[in-house]
Amino acid sequence: MLAAELKSDTLKGLVNIMSTLIDEVKFTITADGMMMKAVDAAHVAMIEMKVGKGAFESYSAQDCEMGLDLDKVKGVLKLASSGDVIKMQQDESAGRLVFKVGNITRRMNLVDTSNLSDPKVPRMELSSKITVSVDELQKGIRAAESISDHITLRATPEYFDLSCEGDTDSSSLRLEKSSLSALEVEAEVCSMFPLDYFSNIIKAIPAGTTVNIGLDNDYPVKLFFTLADGNATVEYLLAPRIENE
Amino acid sequence: MLAAELKSDTLKGLVNIMSTLIDEVKFTITADGMMMKAVDAAHVAMIEMKVGKGAFESYSAQDCEMGLDLDKVKGVLKLASSGDVIKMQQDESAGRLVFKVGNITRRMNLVDTSNLSDPKVPRMELSSKITVSVDELQKGIRAAESISDHITLRATPEYFDLSCEGDTDSSSLRLEKSSLSALEVEAEVCSMFPLDYFSNIIKAIPAGTTVNIGLDNDYPVKLFFTLADGNATVEYLLAPRIENE
Amino acid sequence: MLAAELKSDTLKGLVNIMSTLIDEVKFTITADGMMMKAVDAAHVAMIEMKVGKGAFESYSAQDCEMGLDLDKVKGVLKLASSGDVIKMQQDESAGRLVFKVGNITRRMNLVDTSNLSDPKVPRMELSSKITVSVDELQKGIRAAESISDHITLRATPEYFDLSCEGDTDSSSLRLEKSSLSALEVEAEVCSMFPLDYFSNIIKAIPAGTTVNIGLDNDYPVKLFFTLADGNATVEYLLAPRIENE
Repeated sequence: MLAAELKSDTLKGLVNIMSTLIDEVKFTITADGMMMKAVDAAHVAMIEMKVGKGAFESYSAQDCEMGLDLDKVKGVLKLASSGDVIKMQQDESAGRLVFKVGNITRRMNLVDTSNLSDPKVPRMELSSKITVSVDELQKGIRAAESISDHITLRATPEYFDLSCEGDTDSSSLRLEKSSLSALEVEAEVCSMFPLDYFSNIIKAIPAGTTVNIGLDNDYPVKLFFTLADGNATVEYLLAPRIENE
Repeated sequence: MLAAELKSDTLKGLVNIMSTLIDEVKFTITADGMMMKAVDAAHVAMIEMKVGKGAFESYSAQDCEMGLDLDKVKGVLKLASSGDVIKMQQDESAGRLVFKVGNITRRMNLVDTSNLSDPKVPRMELSSKITVSVDELQKGIRAAESISDHITLRATPEYFDLSCEGDTDSSSLRLEKSSLSALEVEAEVCSMFPLDYFSNIIKAIPAGTTVNIGLDNDYPVKLFFTLADGNATVEYLLAPRIENE
Repeated sequence: MLAAELKSDTLKGLVNIMSTLIDEVKFTITADGMMMKAVDAAHVAMIEMKVGKGAFESYSAQDCEMGLDLDKVKGVLKLASSGDVIKMQQDESAGRLVFKVGNITRRMNLVDTSNLSDPKVPRMELSSKITVSVDELQKGIRAAESISDHITLRATPEYFDLSCEGDTDSSSLRLEKSSLSALEVEAEVCSMFPLDYFSNIIKAIPAGTTVNIGLDNDYPVKLFFTLADGNATVEYLLAPRIENE
């Protein structure tokens, strides 16, 4: 059972992050909030999101699972203006979730969750930590586009660097330690990632968000950030591309 | 003979309405104004528009018929800024209408009116009357899109409802009597209409316009509204989709 | 050798003009500035641009030639905001030009100049001179589009006229002498030009720019204007379309 209200902007932020990886999501719902885990079809990236009840205007739930089609939820978001509150109420008899936005009622069929994966997100200790505004990362991505399909993240004790090396051209964005919120690096680390995945997740993070990055040599990168005034946490893991020698 | 001036915004409003149904229009012109009637190619919807001379900045005409290509008129509108006055002068010898926008002169061939239909718009008495802002109707359409190809209009003594029922999902917008300008319903009535036609006409009506709706059971819906500060009237009829049992 | 800084808006203005004709440009660089000449692949139009060192925030160069891919330079411009200063530094060992925009470094391979043409731009004396704001010319182009593929420029001692004659429709923009900065015409002259070329160059000229036009009978038209506060000059020649009789 679920009955909840949340701001359309909050729901939009959560949906944007999830839909970088998947079309259908399985939420595990408890009295304290909702959580989801997902891996993309190619098994290149994973996401784990926890949305505490504090992210909602009102929240009442009993333990259950619920499958949602994210494109349909985006359709509901288009009916709301910024600042609108969206009501969600589970209609258990019919296997539907009922959204209300102002005087609009939208009844949505739930997705069968038995086919949705429930991946185990590995706990990884990564040697280097970088804390940076997502706006800087977005600049780095724009610089990389059209140069190559991959982006290299490099951290040294002095700077964090996003770079791209094409056949003839190259591009890099260097963020000195002074322009970062934090930079904890003992020895230089460096990994290369598929630009499309990295770009999709970075572009989905709202402007102004602070992102904590965990980085190591030829290892997945971990992005950790919060949404909804700290009431929702997101952990995103992206596998490296390891160059053959 | 026709020589007239009108504001570009007024002409744009009229053209937008007509071009939801037809590409070429036949105007019947008199000393008091212009009128047009049209039915779409599939005979699903009809429109009758009357534009009084009060809609014009200046107007001088003798009885005649004139055929215009609406896409070309839209091209003229693109040359005008909001607030510009557009001059129209018939060049009878050449079978052309000459538009002037500032220092631009645009000579446009008239369309042969002998092939343009002149439908008889039926006078219909519909049992229920709803008066509502077009902005509410536009919200109802947005909610219906992606659910189904049809939209159901329902009026009861208490409310007016736009709803859509898909295979698994549904959507509805309910307008209580208190949020309507008028609601005159003796007994509940309900008809279903093709969403694309209904959507096209509603989207073409300028924001803020008040629309009078006539509705009955499995009967055409009639939309009546005015443009150009009440100097132009539009009546639009849309055939219902009657479900087979 | 080249080391220079210039405002992103200035670079954008120059690139927009050049890319109406060519994809790759050869700059001839001296201590006083840069210049380029180009003809399009169909030999219909020519351009000669001179950018004095005064157009730059800082400029230091020795005589050399440099080939650039304009699409790549546009990519760099997308990384800059209006008001940003872009640094360019030739990396001679690697045959690259290094752009810096804030904390972004973009290394760009130079284009082999041996395949880039170096056309001789003819000095032409044209009998009529018109000085006009590019904004008026842009209006004339908008009026001509969808009527014909050609535009006729006509100058008389009283007015300058841009017109277009289609099979059934026509359009013209007439600029009386009083609305022009200058009009020096002894006897009426008139030439017809391909609309796409004329439209592309006129749309690339920044709003508010004053354009000097040289016109004659069935002869190329010459457009002359300055950019970068007068520190860059552009001469553009467009061949006429001569009607067969």
